[in-house]
Amino acid sequence: MQRISMLGSGFIGRFYADSLQGQRSRDKIVSIYSRREESAQKFAADYQVAHWTTDMEASIAHPDVDVVCIALPNNLHEAAVLLCCKHKKGVICTKPLGRNAAEAKRMLEAVEKAGIFNGYLEDLVYTPKFLKALDSVKNGALGRILWAKSRETHPGPHSEWFWDKEQAGGGCMLDLGCHCVEIARSFIGKDIKPVEVMCWADTQVKPIDAEDHAIGLVKYENGAIGQFEVSWTFRGGLDLRDEVMGTEGTIWINNFLRTGFDMFTTGKGADYVAEKAESNSGWLFPVGDELNDLGYNHMFTDMFAAMEQQRAPQETFYDGYVVNAILDAAYRSAASKLWEPVKLEIWRGRENVGKDVTQQEYDSQYYLVKEEMTHYGTKKVILKDKVSGQIIEKVID
Amino acid sequence: MQRISMLGSGFIGRFYADSLQGQRSRDKIVSIYSRREESAQKFAADYQVAHWTTDMEASIAHPDVDVVCIALPNNLHEAAVLLCCKHKKGVICTKPLGRNAAEAKRMLEAVEKAGIFNGYLEDLVYTPKFLKALDSVKNGALGRILWAKSRETHPGPHSEWFWDKEQAGGGCMLDLGCHCVEIARSFIGKDIKPVEVMCWADTQVKPIDAEDHAIGLVKYENGAIGQFEVSWTFRGGLDLRDEVMGTEGTIWINNFLRTGFDMFTTGKGADYVAEKAESNSGWLFPVGDELNDLGYNHMFTDMFAAMEQQRAPQETFYDGYVVNAILDAAYRSAASKLWEPVKLEIWRGRENVGKDVTQQEYDSQYYLVKEEMTHYGTKKVILKDKVSGQIIEKVID
Amino acid sequence: MQRISMLGSGFIGRFYADSLQGQRSRDKIVSIYSRREESAQKFAADYQVAHWTTDMEASIAHPDVDVVCIALPNNLHEAAVLLCCKHKKGVICTKPLGRNAAEAKRMLEAVEKAGIFNGYLEDLVYTPKFLKALDSVKNGALGRILWAKSRETHPGPHSEWFWDKEQAGGGCMLDLGCHCVEIARSFIGKDIKPVEVMCWADTQVKPIDAEDHAIGLVKYENGAIGQFEVSWTFRGGLDLRDEVMGTEGTIWINNFLRTGFDMFTTGKGADYVAEKAESNSGWLFPVGDELNDLGYNHMFTDMFAAMEQQRAPQETFYDGYVVNAILDAAYRSAASKLWEPVKLEIWRGRENVGKDVTQQEYDSQYYLVKEEMTHYGTKKVILKDKVSGQIIEKVID
Amino acid sequence: MQRISMLGSGFIGRFYADSLQGQRSRDKIVSIYSRREESAQKFAADYQVAHWTTDMEASIAHPDVDVVCIALPNNLHEAAVLLCCKHKKGVICTKPLGRNAAEAKRMLEAVEKAGIFNGYLEDLVYTPKFLKALDSVKNGALGRILWAKSRETHPGPHSEWFWDKEQAGGGCMLDLGCHCVEIARSFIGKDIKPVEVMCWADTQVKPIDAEDHAIGLVKYENGAIGQFEVSWTFRGGLDLRDEVMGTEGTIWINNFLRTGFDMFTTGKGADYVAEKAESNSGWLFPVGDELNDLGYNHMFTDMFAAMEQQRAPQETFYDGYVVNAILDAAYRSAASKLWEPVKLEIWRGRENVGKDVTQQEYDSQYYLVKEEMTHYGTKKVILKDKVSGQIIEKVID
Repeated sequence: MQRISMLGSGFIGRFYADSLQGQRSRDKIVSIYSRREESAQKFAADYQVAHWTTDMEASIAHPDVDVVCIALPNNLHEAAVLLCCKHKKGVICTKPLGRNAAEAKRMLEAVEKAGIFNGYLEDLVYTPKFLKALDSVKNGALGRILWAKSRETHPGPHSEWFWDKEQAGGGCMLDLGCHCVEIARSFIGKDIKPVEVMCWADTQVKPIDAEDHAIGLVKYENGAIGQFEVSWTFRGGLDLRDEVMGTEGTIWINNFLRTGFDMFTTGKGADYVAEKAESNSGWLFPVGDELNDLGYNHMFTDMFAAMEQQRAPQETFYDGYVVNAILDAAYRSAASKLWEPVKLEIWRGRENVGKDVTQQEYDSQYYLVKEEMTHYGTKKVILKDKVSGQIIEKVID
Repeated sequence: MQRISMLGSGFIGRFYADSLQGQRSRDKIVSIYSRREESAQKFAADYQVAHWTTDMEASIAHPDVDVVCIALPNNLHEAAVLLCCKHKKGVICTKPLGRNAAEAKRMLEAVEKAGIFNGYLEDLVYTPKFLKALDSVKNGALGRILWAKSRETHPGPHSEWFWDKEQAGGGCMLDLGCHCVEIARSFIGKDIKPVEVMCWADTQVKPIDAEDHAIGLVKYENGAIGQFEVSWTFRGGLDLRDEVMGTEGTIWINNFLRTGFDMFTTGKGADYVAEKAESNSGWLFPVGDELNDLGYNHMFTDMFAAMEQQRAPQETFYDGYVVNAILDAAYRSAASKLWEPVKLEIWRGRENVGKDVTQQEYDSQYYLVKEEMTHYGTKKVILKDKVSGQIIEKVID
Repeated sequence: MQRISMLGSGFIGRFYADSLQGQRSRDKIVSIYSRREESAQKFAADYQVAHWTTDMEASIAHPDVDVVCIALPNNLHEAAVLLCCKHKKGVICTKPLGRNAAEAKRMLEAVEKAGIFNGYLEDLVYTPKFLKALDSVKNGALGRILWAKSRETHPGPHSEWFWDKEQAGGGCMLDLGCHCVEIARSFIGKDIKPVEVMCWADTQVKPIDAEDHAIGLVKYENGAIGQFEVSWTFRGGLDLRDEVMGTEGTIWINNFLRTGFDMFTTGKGADYVAEKAESNSGWLFPVGDELNDLGYNHMFTDMFAAMEQQRAPQETFYDGYVVNAILDAAYRSAASKLWEPVKLEIWRGRENVGKDVTQQEYDSQYYLVKEEMTHYGTKKVILKDKVSGQIIEKVID
Repeated sequence: MQRISMLGSGFIGRFYADSLQGQRSRDKIVSIYSRREESAQKFAADYQVAHWTTDMEASIAHPDVDVVCIALPNNLHEAAVLLCCKHKKGVICTKPLGRNAAEAKRMLEAVEKAGIFNGYLEDLVYTPKFLKALDSVKNGALGRILWAKSRETHPGPHSEWFWDKEQAGGGCMLDLGCHCVEIARSFIGKDIKPVEVMCWADTQVKPIDAEDHAIGLVKYENGAIGQFEVSWTFRGGLDLRDEVMGTEGTIWINNFLRTGFDMFTTGKGADYVAEKAESNSGWLFPVGDELNDLGYNHMFTDMFAAMEQQRAPQETFYDGYVVNAILDAAYRSAASKLWEPVKLEIWRGRENVGKDVTQQEYDSQYYLVKEEMTHYGTKKVILKDKVSGQIIEKVID
């Protein structure tokens, strides 16, 4: 059993609480901190939390608390982490870890110096589909990974602080891109170094200073490409899709808008249908179980199991730092219009992993380019001469 | 916390155990009974169960046990239930409850007489999609329900006893139809009386005595129709779909083969992909989280919450009995080729619920049949004269 | 080149004309008959038709006309066919052929006696998906066909005469069921005799005399089952799906609502989106090319190619007659609640085709029931003793 | 009626011929040129072509020929076009028009100087889904277009010359990217100037000199972004998808692998299933009508209707030239790693179209950022102060 201090009583804090105390959980939120007294009280009542406070340190330091869950706006993460270090409480922090890599690095170094448990709450690498897909990738079902794309777009976040660049640290690229970057990185291999980033970002629609739409390419040392597509201008709900290409296979994941649940209604009986749905009538696409399908359940299971087994969870502050470093490069690239290097002062993966292109032998003279069945029922091969480089075609029967 | 005796260590017992002890569960299997010693021992080792036995009564009577979970072949349910009554242990029993309504009725009467907690483990009315769909239906998003269809087909069950009519009590209709009947009944309303059944069943492919394919219609007192389509001859995996039509809307649920997770693989790295998948290469359609997506987690949550709150769970032995009574009528119909009455000696729902057809008023002279936009951009109405019954068409602009 | 007399200028006549004169067609409508002068004139103007008339016989007898296309309400088919016979003009007639088998049989006998070309315009067995699926079935990709289901449901037809039982001859079962019956019959084999029908039909919603919802099972002599699901009460658009199960495979066709074209719109720029769509905003599912996707193009190609090659088209009046005979049995069954025999006074297919169940040999002692991979990576077989009938399970490594 | 000289008898020439002479077409191929005599003869026999030759000019100059259809490898387009100019024959040319913009520009200038009809055979902007989507976009259903992505990936082309950089002019980016670029450009507006391109391209798998995988972003003068994703390394078939985001809506088109036609087969009856399918067993996803679904029919209809009506077709050599110019910039960008300008010496669209961002007025003090329904059933707005830029949140009831 884990006894949790929850910092933050907003949208994400409530999602976390629903998961933490859902179903037959043995874990319990024992203290809630909110900046506003009425929010803290309401949260405490809704989730049967014994202790509420508007003093962050009081919650963290509370003697019943084993672990602190940070569900605050981005600009408050660092201060909260430092208090956890001070009081030697394990800490798990929502995404992104920092507003930038410098902030994230300070947090990483602080928790490691303090020797406290640290987990990075990147829920979208804990969705059941992602976990099963990752297993398949690790088992080799897709061969060598060539490209991994993650897309998260919706009509914009719920709370006002997201729209304020100072508090948030950025726009949709930081808010959503942090998910996409870690998803692609996980498929490509977390031990493979991200080397450079090219990014386009723009404020196309919203009256804000930060970007509301961005697309980026992350090049890894082994030649694989990660891609993110993020936006706060999408119409139609929450679009959350991943795609992976490998030499031996393909994965397509749709986490939200098309999951095998279609509903048409003329609009009678309208109420809350799904996270970020835009309508209560016509064709709607609810998900069955948002908490599970968005990864919260498996994420907290991993976090607490890791604490109890004294191992690192799948996602640590180190991962949060790498993600911030990649996004920093993306922001620099959006401004400079150049491929910008990923600056990783701390790197714990492999070094100098080359591009692994293997020419497929056909016979002593040729490499195989492609084999195929024609319309006409014959089999043919396209071959490349090893010496001259000439491409030829040969029918086989 | 609930301490469970598990009766049966086969396929379904293990699925249950994975759910019962999964994630951050506070519940625990404390005794395992299996007919075979090595199975009992292996189960005990795999799930850290303190007590194992080949004596069913010893497991049920074990002092640490709060509740007994029956995961045995159909022909052994009744004996197990009676032992639970004897030892006053709460009991939850896998589907179908009985091999027929007479058996189910005896079990129902026994548990009620003994005053013990009873739950019917019909997992497919606990899938997250089903639960959300049912909420929408109850909120009126679909209006009056006209028809609810559930389909479960796959290439046949895993264990040998399913294929033996004596142990199983029937073929695919009993094995799979029990799910489908309860799904449709839930959408239509569990307080609406099922009145008669028409069913076709045949042994089309398999060398067995029982049916391997069946289709049935269940007529409810209010005119709504439940439909089941079940087979052990389906090729391509596990097809698990529900459809509902109401006067104001439609629901389509796909629980398994098309849930937004597509994988193509040439076949390297082949291993277990999904429950009842037929291949390890080509296009595959895994589900993310079988335990959650098939309803096990929400089912056990409801069962144990009900025990703790001293209320009935969503599904009780009474529901299992009604399902058996409907399937008995289906078996009679398959033989007689007639619509057969559902014989319910115990009925706790509403009586004499009429068909609720409301003519939609257009004006003093006409009922509205249909309103529509033509290709040509004009709006027209089709009307029925209240007195003469004549149908006319009228363009409106 | 074919020169066509079109009888009827309504919804279906216009669809036909769009196809007949679409793209680079060499064919031409040379005469249009409509009951209403303004409709005939408008149609002539819209489609550049040289001759228009309100006298049906004048159109049929017109010297430029090679072939007559009947696009009239059901109650007018027979009279039109007889006029074609009189004037020895080839005739193609929309679906259903008759209001009942007696009417259809008279039309069949008349055209055969007159020796004129006759085609039955059952477009839905000419959709590109259906044609390709049928090829696969004929090539054996699905093995022996066990079951074929076709579903057509929508919110009701466009023209007033459909809602009048006298003119239409029935409700949704005749209007939509004629498609579904011929689709299933084609998959099962048009030379296999349909023997009996069980049907449920009801008027659940609409203020009409005819049925607005029906479900039927058609049993074929070889044990295969055809199934139709039809309704005028469906909400959400035009649902047009086929499913086929065979011993070696499965086919799922979605002809309309989910074809790989999804559009979300807030509703600006609203206009005609798709045949029977119910909304102009939210998520919409248009089809690319209604004329082609609904089979009109391939249907007319087959009809005219058949005329020119002096062969029968894929669908003749004989097929229309068989469909009417099956639907007659369905109407009788809905009334009698019994399986009703299909009364075919004319039958040109095979006779006495038995049920072809082959027990799969495993070894000298056993039949194979099922082979499978377990979770645990072992392969097992379920076997049936040829003599005792006992079912056993055997693990193989 | 059009009488066609077909230059090239390979894969694409045959696809074209199937469309040109398909269904009830009034058009006819009257001469076939192939480099190899046996190919020319076989094509002539298969398609009933009166004249065949291995002399390109003889085919073009043939007196029966109205229009020349170029279906040759990329390096032969220019010579063929010049011969059409010499003989004043209308010309339609397969994609890409040139191997680069210089070649395309010479072809464009030649046909315009010669005053001959010219059409660019970019089939994928003629697919029925694309045409309907484009109509919706033009009607404003999506509002202002922000982003349009097109993706075409498959396991590699059929003929050997594609794999030879000299003949082909490039790899998958030229072969497939030409489609994607024109699709995105059409959605964004063909009168909007493409200004610069950022592109990543690599040879990840195949033993060739050209790229086998590329991703690019095309920035348009009005701030909209076109995106292409192309590869010859994809596993699983032919992936052909478009996505469009606008301020008022979204479009998703799947042209090939998921179009509502699913087939599972154990592999009996295996034969040709679909263009670029990788398997004949397991789950397969055929398309109904490749010729129509890939746009060939509507493309030729537009081409010949344009000739007959003496108007330009939807796609002309000018469009082919613009596409080549964009792809030239993409190749330069892949090498330089910079955003490269699109060099358009000929530009016939609008100039200086600015970015059209409109702040949405909320009241005199605020702009509206977002409006939404919360979980809790209240409506709230997020607003930006017009003067201070401060973001606030306000609950409305």
